[in-house]
Amino acid sequence: MSDVHRASHVDLNSDMGEAFGPYRMGDDEAILRIVTSANVACGFHGGDPDVMVATFASAKDKGVAVGAHPGYSDLWGFGRRVIPHSLKEIERLVAYQIGAAQALSTYAGHPISYVKAHGALGNQTESDPDVARAVTLAIKAVDPKLMCLAIALGHQERIARDLGMVVKSEIFADRAYTEEGKLVSRKLPGAVIHDPEAAAARVVRMVQSNAIETASGKMIPTLIDSICLHSDTPTAVSIAQSVRQGLESAGVTLKAFAPVAAR
Amino acid sequence: MSDVHRASHVDLNSDMGEAFGPYRMGDDEAILRIVTSANVACGFHGGDPDVMVATFASAKDKGVAVGAHPGYSDLWGFGRRVIPHSLKEIERLVAYQIGAAQALSTYAGHPISYVKAHGALGNQTESDPDVARAVTLAIKAVDPKLMCLAIALGHQERIARDLGMVVKSEIFADRAYTEEGKLVSRKLPGAVIHDPEAAAARVVRMVQSNAIETASGKMIPTLIDSICLHSDTPTAVSIAQSVRQGLESAGVTLKAFAPVAAR
Amino acid sequence: MSDVHRASHVDLNSDMGEAFGPYRMGDDEAILRIVTSANVACGFHGGDPDVMVATFASAKDKGVAVGAHPGYSDLWGFGRRVIPHSLKEIERLVAYQIGAAQALSTYAGHPISYVKAHGALGNQTESDPDVARAVTLAIKAVDPKLMCLAIALGHQERIARDLGMVVKSEIFADRAYTEEGKLVSRKLPGAVIHDPEAAAARVVRMVQSNAIETASGKMIPTLIDSICLHSDTPTAVSIAQSVRQGLESAGVTLKAFAPVAAR
Amino acid sequence: MSDVHRASHVDLNSDMGEAFGPYRMGDDEAILRIVTSANVACGFHGGDPDVMVATFASAKDKGVAVGAHPGYSDLWGFGRRVIPHSLKEIERLVAYQIGAAQALSTYAGHPISYVKAHGALGNQTESDPDVARAVTLAIKAVDPKLMCLAIALGHQERIARDLGMVVKSEIFADRAYTEEGKLVSRKLPGAVIHDPEAAAARVVRMVQSNAIETASGKMIPTLIDSICLHSDTPTAVSIAQSVRQGLESAGVTLKAFAPVAAR
Repeated sequence: MSDVHRASHVDLNSDMGEAFGPYRMGDDEAILRIVTSANVACGFHGGDPDVMVATFASAKDKGVAVGAHPGYSDLWGFGRRVIPHSLKEIERLVAYQIGAAQALSTYAGHPISYVKAHGALGNQTESDPDVARAVTLAIKAVDPKLMCLAIALGHQERIARDLGMVVKSEIFADRAYTEEGKLVSRKLPGAVIHDPEAAAARVVRMVQSNAIETASGKMIPTLIDSICLHSDTPTAVSIAQSVRQGLESAGVTLKAFAPVAAR
Repeated sequence: MSDVHRASHVDLNSDMGEAFGPYRMGDDEAILRIVTSANVACGFHGGDPDVMVATFASAKDKGVAVGAHPGYSDLWGFGRRVIPHSLKEIERLVAYQIGAAQALSTYAGHPISYVKAHGALGNQTESDPDVARAVTLAIKAVDPKLMCLAIALGHQERIARDLGMVVKSEIFADRAYTEEGKLVSRKLPGAVIHDPEAAAARVVRMVQSNAIETASGKMIPTLIDSICLHSDTPTAVSIAQSVRQGLESAGVTLKAFAPVAAR
Repeated sequence: MSDVHRASHVDLNSDMGEAFGPYRMGDDEAILRIVTSANVACGFHGGDPDVMVATFASAKDKGVAVGAHPGYSDLWGFGRRVIPHSLKEIERLVAYQIGAAQALSTYAGHPISYVKAHGALGNQTESDPDVARAVTLAIKAVDPKLMCLAIALGHQERIARDLGMVVKSEIFADRAYTEEGKLVSRKLPGAVIHDPEAAAARVVRMVQSNAIETASGKMIPTLIDSICLHSDTPTAVSIAQSVRQGLESAGVTLKAFAPVAAR
Repeated sequence: MSDVHRASHVDLNSDMGEAFGPYRMGDDEAILRIVTSANVACGFHGGDPDVMVATFASAKDKGVAVGAHPGYSDLWGFGRRVIPHSLKEIERLVAYQIGAAQALSTYAGHPISYVKAHGALGNQTESDPDVARAVTLAIKAVDPKLMCLAIALGHQERIARDLGMVVKSEIFADRAYTEEGKLVSRKLPGAVIHDPEAAAARVVRMVQSNAIETASGKMIPTLIDSICLHSDTPTAVSIAQSVRQGLESAGVTLKAFAPVAAR
């Protein structure tokens, strides 16, 4: 959230379109009624051309902005494993997926306006400046007008800005933060917040303070343009609803950071 | 060839970039020195993001125009098997691949200007008007400025024109034609011409007559904008060289049908 | 059911282990508590090595017999599309999957005792004698002691018997039959029976008569060794429960046709 | 080589059957005329059911012993990348591939007698005792009579023996060794020996001394049951021939370590 004082609006984003062929993943229709931006899988870690088109069309119908959500080519591991690649290979597999998403979102009448890296690749954009740079170079090479949705305080935030890209920063609704403002590893206890009320209250505090709240309660200043909501956990829909209601009750307008064409 | 009287120029196209990971396919470098347009595989029946970029870059370096070459998702069968799909599914898998090729060709600094369907899908655009229409609708939806490279006298030629697209027509250098101007099935004897000299002489006759020459020697009038040369057969390079020399000796200029940016 | 007069026992089989990586498919745990035989997917149309082991282990735990359930290499289409293959290729892709299932079921301590073809491949064993023969030759080549689970009145029943294999015949609990005793195409209305009560009553009539009941009510005599229950439809569990209860109420013992090792 | 004093016989092994669909890899026919054991890819990093059967049949025809050659599920990376997996997942993907190889080698009339891990997985069996143990447990669970072909002085050698398996040790004909007897990383200069004469002379020295020769010329005692020859490099055939001739000239008999059925 780039506003100087108080947060007046914020975006809610979630991963969408991760079904594959006969296989479902998450309750996309329910989540699409809550979020303002949908990160649409591009067929490498999830999704297929039909799922992509259906997701873009549903997002259009609900006035939800859409972005490409590229990941490693790893359906079996759902993009959550680091598949070894050179940086050039990363650029190319990201560019490939952005292009596929551009084509199918155009086909569906609802073009993408941003890119967010998925899973293991997304985590690397937070922690590894070389991967952050590779992902951002790919976005810029394909279309410099696409925005980058980056993890707040991670490497991609700064690198993308240095490369002249428009960057939006996200925090996570249900993930605990270390004292350095990094995501607590999922392997550690307390990494994931399961209580919808607690998650919502924490998000409101972070948005109102323009800061990340760590496990100890420390507030680390950051831009907050968007809140990431999970879509594929058992509590996904209830946390998403709770966060949305909490923000609305606090007077924060929920609004996509990217322009959404009128329906 | 759209010229009224004599053919003064024609394009030579060939399938390129069909390697995958560690696996090679054909002698792309040799063929790229002969053709004027390269149909680049998009990762479904062959190719991968790295192979695509390398192919676009090599084509740029040699002044060869590039197009997307989408096929069925069938690496095992190399796109030569008809994978059952609905027409909508065909639209989407074609659009997906065009987008990927647009992104990676832009990344490589040498954007695609046309689309040609591969293998079984390509054969269906000749014989099945519904598939021809689905493929063409996909191209139009993604980018109506892309040209369609279609099989001369096949269904896509007419359908793409009716849909307002720019269509270019191709004949095959080494494939025999039936008396109706269709490709003789590869399962039949004589379907493929193996002699480089014979192939070249026949191509020259067809280009100079603006007509397809059937097995019996009948000439069926058609537009000829491009000659398709195979890239993955043992005799691919020698036939390609022979055809190029034959056309040049006959005074036909070899020139891409699509504009190629200056190097 | 091979008994001469009245059916005293029958097997219930269902497709299992069709999850893939992060993707679920059906409620395997619920169905495994109802059936007596589980047809375990082998990684081509569904399933992966971890899912396979988990399924074999759960079946062992519940005293359910297990078989290999090979299908076409088509995760996207879930094995429901006819992927063009030569008969020799079919033999080999079936043999490959049987071997994988033998190894992982042995690893899990619960070896497979039979093979049933999946989806489009299964349908072809009913309708196309060449495919029925190819599938059966593959089973025999890998291990002639494996039983064949075949569609009652289909080609594989007879061909497998001619090849010296032990064959068991199955009818479908929720699929309508034509007057020739074939499955009504899913594309036609009435092809699938959705009412659990109706399905159960019909199964009981068929088992007690040793006959297939057609849409018109005609009874066509057949052996009935097993009843196929679907596992991946919304009504799968309720139909399975209803059929099981119906048979038990009619005094039919539910029992795997293959021996199951004591737990 | 387990003989006490002088080496009287040794095996030559090479990776085979790594083609996939239309894609070739190496000159299998030439190499099969030189080696005594063929490590046959199982469809995960290379190979497909048809390639596997053709390779088993050709090996049978030439009197060459065959083994399963499982690798990571990574056709794009040819099994040379470490795909993150738990140890249990490694057990299962190895067991799956062994089963597939057992079935198709039985189908081809030439059953496998050993297992050797491929690429990144193989390297891990040398360096990581947990992976070595997982691979060996998988082999033992599927069939304890299968032999393990392990890297000399690596972890699998000892672990497999401790697990009661028959282990055979291999050295590499064209790979340099560190002073600790490990393979020099391919990323370092001099890691690969390209000169056929030099490779052959070094192999003869190692076999006659029952020792690994390091870069500095130090000899580290080891069992040598087999020499690994590469099959997919430009110099593969010439190095293989040179090594074979060198050993024969030195009076070493070339013979599979596993029994090969009479043709």
